[in-house]
Amino acid sequence: VSLLQKMSRLAREELRHFEQVLKVIADRGLSYETVSASRYAQGLHANIRRTEPGRLVDTLVVGALIEARSCERFAKLAPRLDAQLAEFYGSLLKSEARHFEDYLRLAEQYSNGTEVDARLNYFRDVEGALIESPDTDFRFHSGTPSLVA
Amino acid sequence: VSLLQKMSRLAREELRHFEQVLKVIADRGLSYETVSASRYAQGLHANIRRTEPGRLVDTLVVGALIEARSCERFAKLAPRLDAQLAEFYGSLLKSEARHFEDYLRLAEQYSNGTEVDARLNYFRDVEGALIESPDTDFRFHSGTPSLVA
Repeated sequence: VSLLQKMSRLAREELRHFEQVLKVIADRGLSYETVSASRYAQGLHANIRRTEPGRLVDTLVVGALIEARSCERFAKLAPRLDAQLAEFYGSLLKSEARHFEDYLRLAEQYSNGTEVDARLNYFRDVEGALIESPDTDFRFHSGTPSLVA
Repeated sequence: VSLLQKMSRLAREELRHFEQVLKVIADRGLSYETVSASRYAQGLHANIRRTEPGRLVDTLVVGALIEARSCERFAKLAPRLDAQLAEFYGSLLKSEARHFEDYLRLAEQYSNGTEVDARLNYFRDVEGALIESPDTDFRFHSGTPSLVA
């Protein structure tokens, strides 16, 4: 199965999750609000190489990292939520773990042997700095909370 | 069901069609090639109003028109293809017809009463000019074929 097939299926799965989230929001009488891309995601994407084939490998490595961190956060949050949300987060968590592996396998497939490890280490440093520095936003993925004056 | 739910489902259906097309390409030993956006689609999008709520209404009207024209083209092409492709095009055609109505209904829902008709007429003129003028590309949606010197 090709990269395109895999990414298209992954996109469909993510859209389905989006629809499930919309339903949870509606069921709870909450309203949907558009948010801009987080500093975390923007910061990672800004470090993706600009030309192929490096660009594809980096995009896949960044995808893998975001999925892995989402998986960790869902795992931390699930036990503190009501039963319905805890179960939903548990199901999302399993997808994130699978997507992490999908992205990593694709990155290995579309690069030379040692490149993926080097890029993973590079982006791990980038995300470490993003996660540990003060962030005015408080999000699913953000830095340490900083109060706006 | 909200606009977001409907558009997310529609996007999933389109991604599934994309995967079906990839399979047909692979089964026939052809190779996938990236193409830039057609002059037709670009020309329609360039005429979308820049600010809300007009931007949403126009985007939906353009979506409706593209689906309707795709539907017409699939209907014209299907009888000239082998049985397998003819059946596939027939199934796509039914989706396009449904999407045309979905986009139009959403446009009506997110606009005032008479606006949609006026914008449909406007974009019909834009697309008429695009379809009837010479185009160096020969595509599913393009102008009259023009030979490049």
